[in-house]
Amino acid sequence: MNFLEILNKRYACKAMNGQKVPQKTIDNILEAIRLSPTSSGLQPFEVLVITNDELKKEIRKIAWNQPQVTGCSHLLVFAAWDSYTEERINEMFDLTNEVRGVKSKGLEAYRQQLLSFYPKRDAEINFQHTAKQTYIALMSAMAQATAEGVNSTPMEGFEADELDKILNLKEKGLRSTLMLPVGYSDVENDYVAKLKKVRKSMDKMVTVID
Amino acid sequence: MNFLEILNKRYACKAMNGQKVPQKTIDNILEAIRLSPTSSGLQPFEVLVITNDELKKEIRKIAWNQPQVTGCSHLLVFAAWDSYTEERINEMFDLTNEVRGVKSKGLEAYRQQLLSFYPKRDAEINFQHTAKQTYIALMSAMAQATAEGVNSTPMEGFEADELDKILNLKEKGLRSTLMLPVGYSDVENDYVAKLKKVRKSMDKMVTVID
Repeated sequence: MNFLEILNKRYACKAMNGQKVPQKTIDNILEAIRLSPTSSGLQPFEVLVITNDELKKEIRKIAWNQPQVTGCSHLLVFAAWDSYTEERINEMFDLTNEVRGVKSKGLEAYRQQLLSFYPKRDAEINFQHTAKQTYIALMSAMAQATAEGVNSTPMEGFEADELDKILNLKEKGLRSTLMLPVGYSDVENDYVAKLKKVRKSMDKMVTVID
Repeated sequence: MNFLEILNKRYACKAMNGQKVPQKTIDNILEAIRLSPTSSGLQPFEVLVITNDELKKEIRKIAWNQPQVTGCSHLLVFAAWDSYTEERINEMFDLTNEVRGVKSKGLEAYRQQLLSFYPKRDAEINFQHTAKQTYIALMSAMAQATAEGVNSTPMEGFEADELDKILNLKEKGLRSTLMLPVGYSDVENDYVAKLKKVRKSMDKMVTVID
């Protein structure tokens, strides 16, 4: 399946049948998330992978009672850094030097630039920025799931503060941004599966300036 | 190339050689953007495709002088809705009814829910939400470019207010969020091409709750 075929096939699954997704597929979805680009390569988020049924039930209560939260195989939660800190920035730059086996002048200057700017900026502004990066990774996760014949549902519809409490995210300096139930369609109740994909026409989306 | 191969191959190109990308490839990249999911399917953004050299030069000045802005073939600019309005929401729901040839009760109830909530919400909060959706589409654009052997560079580093002025976005109710120069690597100067991809390890990114 090429990438446009993946995008055409993907849709927001509205009901899942509880069937388990193989671990290898989950690993590939997580790898797609891990490989996704982020601003300055900082990867400012973590992912929680929830299979526990009791926990899923609890989360469903603060997620508009959406059935995929309990019907999925694995519930992925994207949790972005609540702010940028010196420690977090340094960790990624140190890792870069370690992996590449060099300490480049340009990169060190860039590190100092970020260190002088991000940590002192308002935490809420920083979080808006880290949150955006999770949307890039969300697309990768959905694409990989579709490529493997697995359904998913991108979700913003949940009480983020409540989810943060349930998962103890605040203590980790994280805030939930997105959920992605991953599983298999409950074909009878998954009404979106049968509907035509709707997208605005190219001329309503694109302006060319030659 | 499967999707994980695409992600492994993709990197942020740091210098481009000015070579033109075939129109068919640009069309496919735009199609990938168009097919990308967005919150409630509202597709709350437009894309400007700039090939004009003078305009690229002008934009480079407000984009930290990054050479890809002028070295690219096509400069894509993502511009998100500055807010949600009744008209914009209705347009997408009307289109949905038109494409699917039915007017479903559930969808009409959902339309009313969004109409009662989004348009009266603070415009800045709405823009933060529309802006996030462009990050999903950004991933699709980069993936499709890579699949077609074309380079790209995701960019947040530009003065958005200045770009909005240059492109008259305010008058259209839009605000720029991201740029994506698309083109071919200037191999000698594209120093990132030779560097190892750096990503934090899976255990630093993922927490499993069984």
